[in-house]
Amino acid sequence: MYKVTALFFSLILFLPLISTAQVPAVEAAREFKDANAHQILSDYFELLKIPNVAGDIENINKNADFLISAFEKRGASMELLTLPDKPNVPPVIYGEINTPGANRTLILYVHYDGQPADPKNWTHAPWEPTLYSASMENNGNPIPFPSVSEPIDPEWRIYGRSASDDKVPFPAILATLDALNESDIPLTSNIKFFFDGEEEAGSPHVREFLERYKEKFEGDLWVFLDGPKHQSGRPQVVFGVRGVTGMEVTVYGPSRALHSGHYGGWSPVPGQMLADLLVSMKNETGEILIEGFNDSTAPITEADRKAFATLPDYDDQIREELGLSWTEFEDRSLIESFMYPTLTIKGLNSGNTGELARNVIPISATASLGIRLAKGNDPQDMQDKVEAHIQKQGYHIVREDPDKETKLKHRKIAKVTRSGGYPAMRTSINDPMAQQVVDAVERAASEEVILYPSYGGTLPIYHFEEVMQTPIVIVPIANHDNNQHAPDENIRIGNIWYGMEIYSSIFTMQ
Amino acid sequence: MYKVTALFFSLILFLPLISTAQVPAVEAAREFKDANAHQILSDYFELLKIPNVAGDIENINKNADFLISAFEKRGASMELLTLPDKPNVPPVIYGEINTPGANRTLILYVHYDGQPADPKNWTHAPWEPTLYSASMENNGNPIPFPSVSEPIDPEWRIYGRSASDDKVPFPAILATLDALNESDIPLTSNIKFFFDGEEEAGSPHVREFLERYKEKFEGDLWVFLDGPKHQSGRPQVVFGVRGVTGMEVTVYGPSRALHSGHYGGWSPVPGQMLADLLVSMKNETGEILIEGFNDSTAPITEADRKAFATLPDYDDQIREELGLSWTEFEDRSLIESFMYPTLTIKGLNSGNTGELARNVIPISATASLGIRLAKGNDPQDMQDKVEAHIQKQGYHIVREDPDKETKLKHRKIAKVTRSGGYPAMRTSINDPMAQQVVDAVERAASEEVILYPSYGGTLPIYHFEEVMQTPIVIVPIANHDNNQHAPDENIRIGNIWYGMEIYSSIFTMQ
Repeated sequence: MYKVTALFFSLILFLPLISTAQVPAVEAAREFKDANAHQILSDYFELLKIPNVAGDIENINKNADFLISAFEKRGASMELLTLPDKPNVPPVIYGEINTPGANRTLILYVHYDGQPADPKNWTHAPWEPTLYSASMENNGNPIPFPSVSEPIDPEWRIYGRSASDDKVPFPAILATLDALNESDIPLTSNIKFFFDGEEEAGSPHVREFLERYKEKFEGDLWVFLDGPKHQSGRPQVVFGVRGVTGMEVTVYGPSRALHSGHYGGWSPVPGQMLADLLVSMKNETGEILIEGFNDSTAPITEADRKAFATLPDYDDQIREELGLSWTEFEDRSLIESFMYPTLTIKGLNSGNTGELARNVIPISATASLGIRLAKGNDPQDMQDKVEAHIQKQGYHIVREDPDKETKLKHRKIAKVTRSGGYPAMRTSINDPMAQQVVDAVERAASEEVILYPSYGGTLPIYHFEEVMQTPIVIVPIANHDNNQHAPDENIRIGNIWYGMEIYSSIFTMQ
Repeated sequence: MYKVTALFFSLILFLPLISTAQVPAVEAAREFKDANAHQILSDYFELLKIPNVAGDIENINKNADFLISAFEKRGASMELLTLPDKPNVPPVIYGEINTPGANRTLILYVHYDGQPADPKNWTHAPWEPTLYSASMENNGNPIPFPSVSEPIDPEWRIYGRSASDDKVPFPAILATLDALNESDIPLTSNIKFFFDGEEEAGSPHVREFLERYKEKFEGDLWVFLDGPKHQSGRPQVVFGVRGVTGMEVTVYGPSRALHSGHYGGWSPVPGQMLADLLVSMKNETGEILIEGFNDSTAPITEADRKAFATLPDYDDQIREELGLSWTEFEDRSLIESFMYPTLTIKGLNSGNTGELARNVIPISATASLGIRLAKGNDPQDMQDKVEAHIQKQGYHIVREDPDKETKLKHRKIAKVTRSGGYPAMRTSINDPMAQQVVDAVERAASEEVILYPSYGGTLPIYHFEEVMQTPIVIVPIANHDNNQHAPDENIRIGNIWYGMEIYSSIFTMQ
């Protein structure tokens, strides 16, 4: 009993103070950053100025040119991989740095495309990066780009599309390579680069790239550099991701917009029908009412629960930060919620609201439904279940807007448009190669690493796992409040420096 | 018994063939139209080209200039009525034509402003009138403006904002005055004009105009020239209108848009909360579930039911035309539905759908609710009832977007924005002066007139009734499928000619 207690106390006292030994590569990265912060940020601004929506192939190619040139300057041999007869598919940027004597190959994944951005919802233009003294939520103000002599505060933010998701690994990798080179510290692994150009478009061609160029991508461990760090700011390694799919559902009222006086109280109202349908799918507190929606979900294991225990309980703090007095399934933690499939109304649209509201009964109402998948859920099977539910509510399902004849034949009609999607992926938390990366991150950060069984977000990782049969870990560096996928996306400057520290440790791990 | 049967048969045989006697004024109007159709339409196009949203005072004044000049050319003395210190309130255009020996004064009401128009939802620009060979729904095609010698088909349509609502009385009145003048047929009444410039903005100043300039508007009968004719195409006189009000309700999720992967299944979803709230207010088949919503509604009288009987039963045809296989309250006719208050979702908005849909949980969801009032309903009392219902669903009501502190204090928050509004109005169907107009319309059209106890739509008529204490009838001329208040508003050319026929009869009635 005494022994157990002593062990308990020594764990309490010493676990948070892991490995205070100085790591030369990390020191080199810090010194380089102190001397070159201005140049690192200035180069990053240039990259952020190039629009990067996957469908905009002209600008996508400008991003690729920029990156190839930057990595070639650091001695990497770079190559633009394309698909035959598909000139409008964003290319994969491939690269290699061969390290004499290395007997391990790491493949680093980054995506250089970003989410579409509707400028009218942004404070500044999405592709005009803007420096702030702090986050907008914390009353930060725009500040001019500093002069070379001015100190750079790690709390500053850069606002701009893809500042966090997912261009931020680029300045951190490039500066890390410069730092190690300047200090003559050699790499210890061969490093390969796989820069994806259409991740935010759902990576429709990533599997084709993987299969076509498979031999280039052989290696021992994929390290995905993407996603936000945990809210606590502690270092984090992630072992899986949710899957994703989605559907758009449109229900129909009259064939033409009707004056709400001349027909109100008589014509069916599509918004009312849609509200009914949505309420039949899920209740306000989060429970999904669609038959079989949870049936294929893998149960939470003991190992998952142990990994949960490495997380500080930040749920209350997040709720407060987000102005939420409650969350769905009151007793379910945020990390636990990632183990279940979700159904989320991402968008609602019918007629107009606000200034443009008119006195009409609209012809239709649309809901955009996001579905996140847990391990075990098949995207198409989940869509089938939602569609079966819609049918059970009396709806005739169509794939195109119905003509009048169809409308007269069926009392209720729903147009269902299915998105693509991919299943969830999870690597074992005990994988030895993954453990080396965990240790390297811990050495750089001198703090216990949070082991995350699964991200809430989604990357097209399952293709990599299926095609390459190689373990995968995700090592995030972005601040959690980066407004990813939303207007006013941003990166905290200190998180770029954090990236340099852990990359330098990983690139030089024994 | 025999006599009753004989009377019954004579009614059947002769009622539909009312008054085949030629009315010289109507004949004059027809002849003038045949000779001058090209010029009438060409002048009307010029008027339709001037944008006429009430808030756009510069263009509103251009409309006023056009109308004053056109009516002065026909011998009317015109005047622009304004309100002191309110230069941005659209003026009322007032006019008089004094007829020697007349012992009756008719006051004609028209509004020259129109609904706002979002050009992206229109086939052609809203203020670039476009001629069509038939309605778009009937596969009409755009056609060039005809040369002077080319015959003009009454089935043609003019597409453009306010083509029907409510600029169409202007070409019909102007051409009627020209026709009577050319044929030396004298008017039989004094005629006054009241052209409203902010009806579609809810006529916020009409009462002030009425009270300020009351003595100008004295007369024996107000004739409102607005609204669409009955679906049957039969002539129609209307004795009342629904009242109107509205509310906008916004409910709140997280303080910033969240990635639907990182927070989906945990963060509350505002669209889901809104759907719940809307379903609690009204069910899919039309029944309003808000306590007391129908309590103040005047019961349907025997006289109302007799007027209903003048209507052909076109409900099935309208349903078919609108692609509706059902309507709210299956056993309730369209005209009967105007006797009840309504609650209609005019708009829904949360995040984005379609191309712009993103993987986020939006910060809020908004519904724009239209409320139409029956006789007896007070606008503010009805809004109170809706708001009390929202509170009963557990919502804390606010008037501005809530700050974080407010959000953390209340589980559910709804911002409720109330529109203005006005009560319903109804004139007695047996009013003698109104009956003269019914007879004049019947003489021009040679068909039984439909007596409509109430329009579904709304005009700010109750102010006129309250201030002027004068009977009011509405005499519509627009085609019922004119897309009033919606994109692609249009007028059927034949309905302008119909306007000339009945106006010429009214202007010369004994």
